[in-house]
Amino acid sequence: MLFPADPAVPATFPVERAVESWAQFRRRAPLVHCLTNEVVQSVTANLLLAAGASPAMVVEPQEAAQFSALADALLINLGTLNQARAESMLAAIESANAAGTPWTLDPVGVGALTYRTTFAHQLLALRPAAIRANASEILALCGQPALGRGVDSGDDSLQALPAARELAQQTGAVVAVTGRVDYVTDGQETWAIPGGHPLMTRVVGTGCALSALVAGFCALEGPRRDRVAAACALMARAGERATAQANGPGSVLPRLLDEVYQQMEGGV
Amino acid sequence: MLFPADPAVPATFPVERAVESWAQFRRRAPLVHCLTNEVVQSVTANLLLAAGASPAMVVEPQEAAQFSALADALLINLGTLNQARAESMLAAIESANAAGTPWTLDPVGVGALTYRTTFAHQLLALRPAAIRANASEILALCGQPALGRGVDSGDDSLQALPAARELAQQTGAVVAVTGRVDYVTDGQETWAIPGGHPLMTRVVGTGCALSALVAGFCALEGPRRDRVAAACALMARAGERATAQANGPGSVLPRLLDEVYQQMEGGV
Amino acid sequence: MLFPADPAVPATFPVERAVESWAQFRRRAPLVHCLTNEVVQSVTANLLLAAGASPAMVVEPQEAAQFSALADALLINLGTLNQARAESMLAAIESANAAGTPWTLDPVGVGALTYRTTFAHQLLALRPAAIRANASEILALCGQPALGRGVDSGDDSLQALPAARELAQQTGAVVAVTGRVDYVTDGQETWAIPGGHPLMTRVVGTGCALSALVAGFCALEGPRRDRVAAACALMARAGERATAQANGPGSVLPRLLDEVYQQMEGGV
Repeated sequence: MLFPADPAVPATFPVERAVESWAQFRRRAPLVHCLTNEVVQSVTANLLLAAGASPAMVVEPQEAAQFSALADALLINLGTLNQARAESMLAAIESANAAGTPWTLDPVGVGALTYRTTFAHQLLALRPAAIRANASEILALCGQPALGRGVDSGDDSLQALPAARELAQQTGAVVAVTGRVDYVTDGQETWAIPGGHPLMTRVVGTGCALSALVAGFCALEGPRRDRVAAACALMARAGERATAQANGPGSVLPRLLDEVYQQMEGGV
Repeated sequence: MLFPADPAVPATFPVERAVESWAQFRRRAPLVHCLTNEVVQSVTANLLLAAGASPAMVVEPQEAAQFSALADALLINLGTLNQARAESMLAAIESANAAGTPWTLDPVGVGALTYRTTFAHQLLALRPAAIRANASEILALCGQPALGRGVDSGDDSLQALPAARELAQQTGAVVAVTGRVDYVTDGQETWAIPGGHPLMTRVVGTGCALSALVAGFCALEGPRRDRVAAACALMARAGERATAQANGPGSVLPRLLDEVYQQMEGGV
Repeated sequence: MLFPADPAVPATFPVERAVESWAQFRRRAPLVHCLTNEVVQSVTANLLLAAGASPAMVVEPQEAAQFSALADALLINLGTLNQARAESMLAAIESANAAGTPWTLDPVGVGALTYRTTFAHQLLALRPAAIRANASEILALCGQPALGRGVDSGDDSLQALPAARELAQQTGAVVAVTGRVDYVTDGQETWAIPGGHPLMTRVVGTGCALSALVAGFCALEGPRRDRVAAACALMARAGERATAQANGPGSVLPRLLDEVYQQMEGGV
């Protein structure tokens, strides 16, 4: 597959649109069903709580299906995928789709690993509302060669933007490819959200937790590309503030949660 | 089922009784076997360690049974229940009951979800020493309609007190229904423990970790209603101090652990 | 089994050798595959990230095998062992051995618990590069009686040093027995690394996360005993700084990660 050169640098997502979505999120306080990986469950729940959402992790297949129909949004994260969890995910997605609950895919580590890559491709056919991934994972979902060996992306997010657009067109999902700058595209138009900081990559689960926020923002009315961009903008702004004058990654996480909380409770 | 109107506002648990139980807990340093949910294992272990207890999570069915007989207390938390974990729980409870080890139930999310609700009712017949839950969960265990959709309680703890008394009488357990005010009842007499703070609900696992403390306090000699109330009072006092002047939920968790530690190591 | 009296007090590991290994670790930034327990995955990943390594937890058996061949090092931690995870561990170790990837064993809680003790003995035959454990666990691996009931060690690390030497000779692994003072031995020569602090034992996962660091340091060229000692020295120094003037265990963890980060990014 060949992608045309990027026609133009995408426009930066305007802060006033972010603020509008954040207010809507506060009012809705979505209940987000998270089927996510073992490593990041705590930080994922804490980020959703800080933002004013209600997280819930319900994993038994029958209950996962029951709960996805009650929830406002569903997150599927492939980080520590195994057969039992894959079964729960399929049950939850089927139920979410039947109930009209939007679901978001975080395809952690796809590419080099066969089992999850095959599963991820199976999921792409099940109409995700959004996909949040780093550059390597987006390239892998499109069958492009990637640079990364592990879950950290060796690719720049801008390099993966053509693949992200293609993926959005193929699946109907809004695709967020995140990195130093995040790009959010519906396949036609693209927002850029600057503000990533290297120290954020030294805290486990910041990307996975952002995917949970993206899932929650997909529960809101209105243009989904703006909603997903607003989730990225919330994380970017909180991350900028949390990393400023931080002594290291240990002090970043508590500050990040505080910044998200203050942003959502205190207004701009 | 109909409950009579509450005869009187329950008395507040006296701080000197809490102090006595806290000293006893420090001396005993109970080994608490936790079969708890995937999301809160870390905060649960850290809270027990801060309080001077020894946490251990042993999950394979045969080992879980072996370990429950060695431990001083057992916690059963239904948050991310699945078939394999349910099997381990039953093995651990059977072994605990045979060895005289008290076990505590945290029925996370019972009500709307069929699988865990059926399992929780099965567990109620196995003589828990204590039950720690929010109002919605207590109402659900008694077959009353609840307000909550997720794991957060939409009900006020005082509203659920009659159901908590009924549950204590039916099961023989001391029941703690927690919220802005916690109520601890043995079905006859009830203590009130004020001090809950909304910011504590924005940190994942504070309720689940309190259940682990309750489990540990059930290992102590003496009146169990006082012991369980002392666990709630420890969390309430530490929570009050941790949330005062906090910038948000991110700074609450480290402070909460520090406050529990200082309370238990430094005396009142 | 009887051990001869310790011939001499082991020499303290020189700081300049630690500094050399730390610089090597920074340049290599090893990708560490962690099959570890449910409770400590987050702190394990965060410690590796703070030190500049790339953690990854890949748990499905086929993928775990695939990933161990790609990774620079593998960690096997028995904390919440169950049958499914044991299967993944065996697949990962076999693949690691075939690819020449060094693997490290953390035998959490061996001794009183039959299932994991049997499994740990099975693993000892599979040529671990390093073993990191507390005194009780080292004694248990050598068939000696231990004092501990839970995962916390009731034994002094120096008491277990003869057993650690024996274990190193039997398995070919470098053995680190950690406590108030850590000892690292290849069965012939031993380094002592002082600096343990009681408050570090009140934070869940510090020992397990150190094992992940040990695994990462085993990926480096050069004498393995020095590399493993350097991992212990990094943790000891960061722990000393993190616990100084700490209010309790809640403030220790963020500080510990910051101190590791500053040590590795900022030089001595």
